[in-house]
Amino acid sequence: MSAIPQLRNDGSLRHLLTLEGLPRALIERLLERAVHWSRPLGATAARGTALAGRTVAVMFAEPSTRTRVSFELAARRIGAEVAVIEVQLSSRLKGESVLDTVATLESMHVDAFVLRDADATVPDLVATHVAPHVSVLSGGAGSVTHPTQGLLDAFTVLQRKGRIEDLSIAIVGDVRHSRVARSSWQAFAALGAGDVRLVAPAGLMPDAGEFPGCSRHHALESGIADCDVVMMLRIQKERMVEAAIPGAEDYFAHWGLTRERLRKARPDALVMHPGPMNRGVEIASEVADGPQSVIRDQVRNGVAVRMAVLEAVLGS
Amino acid sequence: MSAIPQLRNDGSLRHLLTLEGLPRALIERLLERAVHWSRPLGATAARGTALAGRTVAVMFAEPSTRTRVSFELAARRIGAEVAVIEVQLSSRLKGESVLDTVATLESMHVDAFVLRDADATVPDLVATHVAPHVSVLSGGAGSVTHPTQGLLDAFTVLQRKGRIEDLSIAIVGDVRHSRVARSSWQAFAALGAGDVRLVAPAGLMPDAGEFPGCSRHHALESGIADCDVVMMLRIQKERMVEAAIPGAEDYFAHWGLTRERLRKARPDALVMHPGPMNRGVEIASEVADGPQSVIRDQVRNGVAVRMAVLEAVLGS
Amino acid sequence: MSAIPQLRNDGSLRHLLTLEGLPRALIERLLERAVHWSRPLGATAARGTALAGRTVAVMFAEPSTRTRVSFELAARRIGAEVAVIEVQLSSRLKGESVLDTVATLESMHVDAFVLRDADATVPDLVATHVAPHVSVLSGGAGSVTHPTQGLLDAFTVLQRKGRIEDLSIAIVGDVRHSRVARSSWQAFAALGAGDVRLVAPAGLMPDAGEFPGCSRHHALESGIADCDVVMMLRIQKERMVEAAIPGAEDYFAHWGLTRERLRKARPDALVMHPGPMNRGVEIASEVADGPQSVIRDQVRNGVAVRMAVLEAVLGS
Repeated sequence: MSAIPQLRNDGSLRHLLTLEGLPRALIERLLERAVHWSRPLGATAARGTALAGRTVAVMFAEPSTRTRVSFELAARRIGAEVAVIEVQLSSRLKGESVLDTVATLESMHVDAFVLRDADATVPDLVATHVAPHVSVLSGGAGSVTHPTQGLLDAFTVLQRKGRIEDLSIAIVGDVRHSRVARSSWQAFAALGAGDVRLVAPAGLMPDAGEFPGCSRHHALESGIADCDVVMMLRIQKERMVEAAIPGAEDYFAHWGLTRERLRKARPDALVMHPGPMNRGVEIASEVADGPQSVIRDQVRNGVAVRMAVLEAVLGS
Repeated sequence: MSAIPQLRNDGSLRHLLTLEGLPRALIERLLERAVHWSRPLGATAARGTALAGRTVAVMFAEPSTRTRVSFELAARRIGAEVAVIEVQLSSRLKGESVLDTVATLESMHVDAFVLRDADATVPDLVATHVAPHVSVLSGGAGSVTHPTQGLLDAFTVLQRKGRIEDLSIAIVGDVRHSRVARSSWQAFAALGAGDVRLVAPAGLMPDAGEFPGCSRHHALESGIADCDVVMMLRIQKERMVEAAIPGAEDYFAHWGLTRERLRKARPDALVMHPGPMNRGVEIASEVADGPQSVIRDQVRNGVAVRMAVLEAVLGS
Repeated sequence: MSAIPQLRNDGSLRHLLTLEGLPRALIERLLERAVHWSRPLGATAARGTALAGRTVAVMFAEPSTRTRVSFELAARRIGAEVAVIEVQLSSRLKGESVLDTVATLESMHVDAFVLRDADATVPDLVATHVAPHVSVLSGGAGSVTHPTQGLLDAFTVLQRKGRIEDLSIAIVGDVRHSRVARSSWQAFAALGAGDVRLVAPAGLMPDAGEFPGCSRHHALESGIADCDVVMMLRIQKERMVEAAIPGAEDYFAHWGLTRERLRKARPDALVMHPGPMNRGVEIASEVADGPQSVIRDQVRNGVAVRMAVLEAVLGS
């Protein structure tokens, strides 16, 4: 759990660094508000003015189209001004510390920072140093946390299933190194999920103390049996090496979600993936683009959830 | 001709991937609308709200100040929100396919994509995969097509000459590898040009089947004789090597447009260049900056034409 | 002094390339207007519409978060549209000259350019070539000039001390290579400063003819004795080598501003630094973050001053 208090004295959300420890009621209010900002695929984006006059700095030290643009559009669509800073391209070249860069931007009346850094401690570090009126949102921190991803995953399941409590949810693949797995599990757990399963090769299973209450499965087909949700994770080549998996083909042979394997889950099971996908490695294209896939809904809901979060921290 | 239908069932423009096959009336309507958005050099830019609430993604996988900023300003000036994505810097690093990146952005309620890629098939490929309400505009595809450049060239000639039909237009230089030459010729041809001449060294002349109806000339001075329009093309060093031209000096000696050579054309002939110019290679500075040059008008008209195109595809 | 006239015939500001030669009354009007745009740390940014419909191109050929974002936010907060162009990433790859890039953007109805280039002559060069209605602002030129930094430094001193005339101001460190030192001294001098001291190691002291009227000091403690303002400068490693300083530790030992050394200045002396800081090299963290530091005010005031300058050149 983050050592940084994320709530203001009045119980409202100030920072979003992790979902761990957030009250269920607060998560539910965020998701209700995301419903307000959500539009069907194909519709024009929702717009508002809650953040008119506010400035959001999006500082990503790792490349990311998906999360960076999602935050950028979310902030602009509710009226904020956005400054995009590619950290590695600018001040770090001059040896300035992240804290000095943040202090500089804060002095320019930046009201919120969205941060992604290879060093997972950066968002917490920044949050302990900003002025009381400034908010810090994690855009994904190392393998530890990606709170808006967790919220959008829970939102997507709720949208399709209407509930979380009695669902069986399988998180499949490189759970060990996945910030998505951690944050999504935290969201599901906060909303009362009873059966969350970790399905992973031995080398990619998290340490024993993590993910309390989750069952652990070492084979894909048995792991997803009769599940309501199959959440696939991205696998990186370096991780295969660590887990003694010979390569992508071998990974797919054992851990790739194919149409045939998906039949082990419930017929109406949702297929999720946080993207970007390695098609033919962790997921077959026929499944990624198939009728059970809600992968595009996840992306769509990501914007709505980020609008709700930005509105919650800045929109008073 | 692109295999992708560019028009909706009601005859309105949905995609702009090529000018080939576009009805003359549609091109004329676009250019009339560009008149509406055009302002004199030195005036403040025109502005509108036709695209308020719409989102345009500008995805360039090749560096380009000119076309990228032109589209960006055009979209913003009629009210759109613009997300700029430098493809090589982000998702491609992670091995995501262009189609998955596009699907992701589409899920974020992007309404139109402006695409440039080293691979000329990318805009067509994307256009075949986007949802029915989404438009794709080519920002220049390989050596094949650059439709908004063709429109702005035709617009510039019309603005100065009042007509296309009875003009003699010379396209000079590396016609073989030029998407500008192809698209501008298509625009001129659609608007009834009777005399379009290709003027190029043998190695840079396009294949025989291309540019039907154009005459071909292997010397600059005879090629531009009595022309109304001299459109110079950018030459790249690699192309000189391919065409067995020893170097830039030699190219300029034979193919550079000097003030003296320009006298072969009509006294009121327009000098055009799509930029960026290699001064002293394909064109002398005295000509580029001289009284017959309409090169800056081309740039200015580029914004107006792109406003007209974006309005046509999105502004309903 | 810049050879380029910076004022229009009516005495209003057109370009801002240097503070040298600017009338005191004009500088004072800019700073009064900056008061209008200034907000306390922690407040929401000021906003206006003076530049609605105008376009500002921010072209930085050197990396800079601070100055680039400061200009970008300043321009947007008074209603301008901003196009950010990273020069090294785009047209220079294609060998286009800066002047052709500028002419291209001018043709797209860019009304003002903010320029930073490793080549200090670029802003002046551009200013001599743009159309009469277009303004050029230096965002920092080589070691020569950084006029908005000079204005924000003077503004910060005035805000805290209420006057410049009878203050003792020490500029400390690599004065020789510092555009900040030059521009800030010009601002102080224009506003009547009587005692400006250059405090630097021999190898980093400017040539004899420069900074007329300033006293020169070769030791930190005597140089800042009884000063009202201690302005520290950034030192770069390359410069230490040139000045025969063994390294950062040695520099700090002799030239770093510590709490102890600061006691030589007046008890209410302001500590300034243009950023980015090398903590532990030219300044100790305890001083940078201490009660006498106005470093964050400098950044904050930078936005207000740039709003005032942009409004002055474009907002009629």
